[in-house]
Amino acid sequence: MSDADTIFSRIIRGEIPAHRVYEDQHVFAFLDINPLSEGHTLVIPKRPVALLHELPADEAAAIGRVLGRIAAAVVEAVGAAGYNVLQNNGAVAGQVVDHVHFHIIPRAADDGLGYRWNAQPVESDALAALADRLRARLS
Amino acid sequence: MSDADTIFSRIIRGEIPAHRVYEDQHVFAFLDINPLSEGHTLVIPKRPVALLHELPADEAAAIGRVLGRIAAAVVEAVGAAGYNVLQNNGAVAGQVVDHVHFHIIPRAADDGLGYRWNAQPVESDALAALADRLRARLS
Repeated sequence: MSDADTIFSRIIRGEIPAHRVYEDQHVFAFLDINPLSEGHTLVIPKRPVALLHELPADEAAAIGRVLGRIAAAVVEAVGAAGYNVLQNNGAVAGQVVDHVHFHIIPRAADDGLGYRWNAQPVESDALAALADRLRARLS
Repeated sequence: MSDADTIFSRIIRGEIPAHRVYEDQHVFAFLDINPLSEGHTLVIPKRPVALLHELPADEAAAIGRVLGRIAAAVVEAVGAAGYNVLQNNGAVAGQVVDHVHFHIIPRAADDGLGYRWNAQPVESDALAALADRLRARLS
């Protein structure tokens, strides 16, 4: 478990100003000041952990509970045609601030946003073996 | 509310084979058969709705509750250095199957994956005005 007292903890505590849009016992949401598109919002747990799987289940559930509601408000407010929810874990995955954060990124046609993610061919047997290992870990 | 009886509902019902890794009352998870990287997993609600904000809060919370746990199992199983969680809403956002799905995408250094998302300059006054509108919608 990391102890990530980052800029986000300072925002939650009000030590740094932010454009807050939502807050409850476990969750805080605010506008990204370097938005990828109008309405780009960050939804974070109040607990300062770096990685999603470090967050206690109840607090992760609290984020799941409100993520769609916040997204719907954002989409309506800015008139978006859709949205991405993106959450990065680790520098290799593009994480910059070491405090869990879900991006809500409103999307429009021809907005120039997107990803470079090419699927790889894979053997069905390899998938079956991996699924077996994962079910064992998760059972 | 959409009624999205897609290929994912057929997978949940067992009408189409899939490499299942996790299942509970509200949530189903299985390996993507066109993985972006080894261990690429889809976590979906059992309810067939297309968009995250259409999902009842309890069922969205159920996904939030297990997402990190599934991701940790995937990361350990494949030895990943990090992971992205990505969930697309609407064709404009890259959604292909109209049933809510969270991608867990394991990441490694120099894996060639990534996104093309350039931040836009924005006025603080505009952010403050938008945050006011969102707080009003969410209060």
